[in-house]
Amino acid sequence: MALTERQQAELAEARAQRHETRRPTVPALEAMLFEAMPVLDHGFVRVVDYMGDDAAVVQAARVSYGRGTRAANEDRGLIRYLMRHRHSTPFEMCEIKLHVKLPIFVARQWIRHRMANVNEYSARYSVLDREFYIPERGALAAQSASNRQGRGDTLGGEEAERVLALLREDAGRNYDHYIEMLNEGEDGQVLDPARQGLTRELARMNLTLNAYTQWYWKVDLHNLFHFLSLRADAHAQYEIRVYAEAILRAVEAWVPLCAEAFRDYRLGAVTLSSRMLEVVRAMLDGTEPTAEAAGLSKREWRELMAVLGRA
Amino acid sequence: MALTERQQAELAEARAQRHETRRPTVPALEAMLFEAMPVLDHGFVRVVDYMGDDAAVVQAARVSYGRGTRAANEDRGLIRYLMRHRHSTPFEMCEIKLHVKLPIFVARQWIRHRMANVNEYSARYSVLDREFYIPERGALAAQSASNRQGRGDTLGGEEAERVLALLREDAGRNYDHYIEMLNEGEDGQVLDPARQGLTRELARMNLTLNAYTQWYWKVDLHNLFHFLSLRADAHAQYEIRVYAEAILRAVEAWVPLCAEAFRDYRLGAVTLSSRMLEVVRAMLDGTEPTAEAAGLSKREWRELMAVLGRA
Amino acid sequence: MALTERQQAELAEARAQRHETRRPTVPALEAMLFEAMPVLDHGFVRVVDYMGDDAAVVQAARVSYGRGTRAANEDRGLIRYLMRHRHSTPFEMCEIKLHVKLPIFVARQWIRHRMANVNEYSARYSVLDREFYIPERGALAAQSASNRQGRGDTLGGEEAERVLALLREDAGRNYDHYIEMLNEGEDGQVLDPARQGLTRELARMNLTLNAYTQWYWKVDLHNLFHFLSLRADAHAQYEIRVYAEAILRAVEAWVPLCAEAFRDYRLGAVTLSSRMLEVVRAMLDGTEPTAEAAGLSKREWRELMAVLGRA
Amino acid sequence: MALTERQQAELAEARAQRHETRRPTVPALEAMLFEAMPVLDHGFVRVVDYMGDDAAVVQAARVSYGRGTRAANEDRGLIRYLMRHRHSTPFEMCEIKLHVKLPIFVARQWIRHRMANVNEYSARYSVLDREFYIPERGALAAQSASNRQGRGDTLGGEEAERVLALLREDAGRNYDHYIEMLNEGEDGQVLDPARQGLTRELARMNLTLNAYTQWYWKVDLHNLFHFLSLRADAHAQYEIRVYAEAILRAVEAWVPLCAEAFRDYRLGAVTLSSRMLEVVRAMLDGTEPTAEAAGLSKREWRELMAVLGRA
Repeated sequence: MALTERQQAELAEARAQRHETRRPTVPALEAMLFEAMPVLDHGFVRVVDYMGDDAAVVQAARVSYGRGTRAANEDRGLIRYLMRHRHSTPFEMCEIKLHVKLPIFVARQWIRHRMANVNEYSARYSVLDREFYIPERGALAAQSASNRQGRGDTLGGEEAERVLALLREDAGRNYDHYIEMLNEGEDGQVLDPARQGLTRELARMNLTLNAYTQWYWKVDLHNLFHFLSLRADAHAQYEIRVYAEAILRAVEAWVPLCAEAFRDYRLGAVTLSSRMLEVVRAMLDGTEPTAEAAGLSKREWRELMAVLGRA
Repeated sequence: MALTERQQAELAEARAQRHETRRPTVPALEAMLFEAMPVLDHGFVRVVDYMGDDAAVVQAARVSYGRGTRAANEDRGLIRYLMRHRHSTPFEMCEIKLHVKLPIFVARQWIRHRMANVNEYSARYSVLDREFYIPERGALAAQSASNRQGRGDTLGGEEAERVLALLREDAGRNYDHYIEMLNEGEDGQVLDPARQGLTRELARMNLTLNAYTQWYWKVDLHNLFHFLSLRADAHAQYEIRVYAEAILRAVEAWVPLCAEAFRDYRLGAVTLSSRMLEVVRAMLDGTEPTAEAAGLSKREWRELMAVLGRA
Repeated sequence: MALTERQQAELAEARAQRHETRRPTVPALEAMLFEAMPVLDHGFVRVVDYMGDDAAVVQAARVSYGRGTRAANEDRGLIRYLMRHRHSTPFEMCEIKLHVKLPIFVARQWIRHRMANVNEYSARYSVLDREFYIPERGALAAQSASNRQGRGDTLGGEEAERVLALLREDAGRNYDHYIEMLNEGEDGQVLDPARQGLTRELARMNLTLNAYTQWYWKVDLHNLFHFLSLRADAHAQYEIRVYAEAILRAVEAWVPLCAEAFRDYRLGAVTLSSRMLEVVRAMLDGTEPTAEAAGLSKREWRELMAVLGRA
Repeated sequence: MALTERQQAELAEARAQRHETRRPTVPALEAMLFEAMPVLDHGFVRVVDYMGDDAAVVQAARVSYGRGTRAANEDRGLIRYLMRHRHSTPFEMCEIKLHVKLPIFVARQWIRHRMANVNEYSARYSVLDREFYIPERGALAAQSASNRQGRGDTLGGEEAERVLALLREDAGRNYDHYIEMLNEGEDGQVLDPARQGLTRELARMNLTLNAYTQWYWKVDLHNLFHFLSLRADAHAQYEIRVYAEAILRAVEAWVPLCAEAFRDYRLGAVTLSSRMLEVVRAMLDGTEPTAEAAGLSKREWRELMAVLGRA
């Protein structure tokens, strides 16, 4: 993540501003505002704006006129109740806006979450930066043998070297050819006055999927929790999980009571099917149920025993 | 709109608060914050929170790092360009949260706008207030003869009196019976200890559709403009239009450049079909086109001539 | 549910039609098509159209060219896997369209589910029928003492009689006044030529919330399952639950494998928070955890013990 | 677009099926069903399923019990009225499902339309085919000088040759390296038993943005018209416009009355701002308005004169 001098100046200027407002503010999030949290080798997440706080969730749930005078403890109880019973609308009353720099293949997963607002940097209008994601050695995993979409062991030395070399060379070469086809430098100057230059909307297709893009992404807290429950999960692809984890840190600064309830009732929660629940009840009664008798597949049985810590 | 003392105290307390923030603020909207704008006889709209300003639209369209140093004039040009060419996503980057008190039949129209967040006061949990919408004499219109969903002339004196009496009596009687069935006063006390009281979720169905409800409603600026283009329009039902107009005043304080572009390119705009455009072109060429030759129905022809000021 | 002769003729005509199609069809649902399933005293649900079947979910999950030649057993396994792991998008590939007649207060709950398409009968255009929901004696519950939005015991005889009388009289009187204000019969004829008649968009507000409305409602299977998981649940209000149950019967005819997976993994499932899971693990280990030690509130502890059958 | 034998067999089998249904069918669309319409060099669009027809729009708008017995002419009039006055919900009652093969950079534009259902072929699970979009010579445009996101003249011979060579070589090489890193052929066999093979979710990032992906895409008719109004427009990028045009052909077979209304009132329509309308009125009155007097920018004036055929 190398910000240009101009970008750093813009960030510093934004951070230096102070305004007076009647709106609720969250000092812990204000402290992080505008600052870029580095993610992967060239990416970042930064909070650009926010609306609401823990109390705003309570206020909306009660459709109240003011912020109320109840004890903080009551607010916590209500927030936990709402999260536990999946009352989603009060959490929709908080909103956060992020500026994110991320590899295109990550952006393609991310955009599947439709209940959000997005403005992406347009490679039809502008030339992209010469930046691509090259994994660290430790992140170069083999295909998992047991899980068709998972990662297995880390690649051995020679194979890893070869992979890194290929990724670096191909991304770099393709970017250089992108610039050559455009006949335009990153700073916009014409490279060869004798050529016309391919239109940007076509040239961009020579880029690789690990090229970085960036966008403004705005989402309400309910839909953000849904995003985080899928993307901060251990089964998510590492390259999107690190973004989710960075965002989760911002959420914890922003709405600590909601974030705590989310960790308890969503992120760390497990769902048991009616048949799984029967097995648990039987085990508590001291009987020894079997997968067959319970009507569970072997895979479900393994999942259940792992959840119960009896694998 | 009669606020209780407690509600007034809560509003005053909210308005008295001052916080420091790095976020963009809009002084003209801050001045209106939390205050209830009266609408109809007991309703109101009040702005509870907001995110973003005119510059935030520009910033998102450019996916920029800071708020930029460009001339205000350039911002205006870009905002007008975005509005004219229906680039909707930059306007989604601003968000506003309202607290609205409104008759149930208005709420039923309003909720059709799905791209918003809503928390409604629950008549399963709580007892509604004894407030119903009774139109002013001038708003008591007859059914339009030409438009199946429109209003015609104002009702004459005697008929109007009778209508007002019926509306008042029926709403009042039904509310009193609602309270009787609940066996519970507005303040929660039991009325007759010898009775059980009907559950709130059933008793509410005796209320009339002009009873007032209230909700928190949060929406992004793009979807708000869509709402306003339909509901601040002359064809909208008067009882929802007055809410839209109140909101439009808040929007003008909040994002004046966007609001101006909205008035020019959306609210006051007309859409001409390809056939209508052919008629206009022919008229400019000095020929005298006819509905038949142009393939327009009589109704379309009338609509077009009205638009062109040639009715 | 009294259909007019004309409506019955239209239904019969629709049911009599047979067309040839290359699209997948589901004979069990075809048999129910267009027929009104009665719900409450005057309401109904009827399936008007559908797209897809169990195999379409599999086909979309695999992005395959045809319907495949795999064993039905593999399809079932994949559907159960998708449901268990909350892969929602394949279920979005099936769609169903319903015509529903329902009391307005039920419609107000229902419409909160935003991810659906709705066309409601307009009381701005047309006059509503003289039909209102009057609960059966057994459905007249008192307010629950323990649950602010729940039902308690059934009302005693005298109180129940009084409630029924009030509901009947108020709804009937308000409807009669609605017609009087309109100065227009259900069949459209003018009642008193000396009067103008109040516009329909205003007169409707004199109706009670138990008046019936109707709409076309179209939804994809994923969002329908979300609706059913909330509304076919024991905590849902009885008056909407009976609609959900009728729809669930249609779903079982339509996509039996998806419906089975839904019952197992969603409708009958329970979610345990991380702290609750710790309690279960401890109990399986033979220790006797307490609410305090586990960090659970008394309410959560009661909920957990009820789930485990140890209340 | 080279389908494998197996894919062709699956398509043929699907097309050979005939079922009996009570649902409305559209013979003209049935004739196209499942068949792949070629788009670009390796892409296609094929209709996989549909719900509803022209009459279904009318039926929903009227919330009617059957398909009615009105004249076809009345249906056309109502559909045109609904389209002209932007009544969107009746059009939401029709739904279509497509299988599309398309370059990734086109998929990234397409996915911005959020109100649709998508299942994309997963490069985390499976290996992509060796297919990339290489434009035809005539599509190799230079960057437009006047429009930052548009195309200008076609590239000259030598420059075009160089661009095509670069696109072909880079895409091919990157694909070959993708397969090498995977250590897995398109048919799944291990290439070098001595190596582990990089996990699919990482290897895919070496692919270029002109590699082909595919998805199932399902959308209602209202949102499809919105998509088509933007993507079948002359300002859309050529590579997505050809997809939109293929879809529009299917729509014309499916709902001819809706498609006709769409062409008249949306695709060929122009929107005039209130200020532009003033100019038109003045011109019709025989005065000669100017941009300055009308408060139009030079750009708007040019746009208006072009619309009026007076450029």
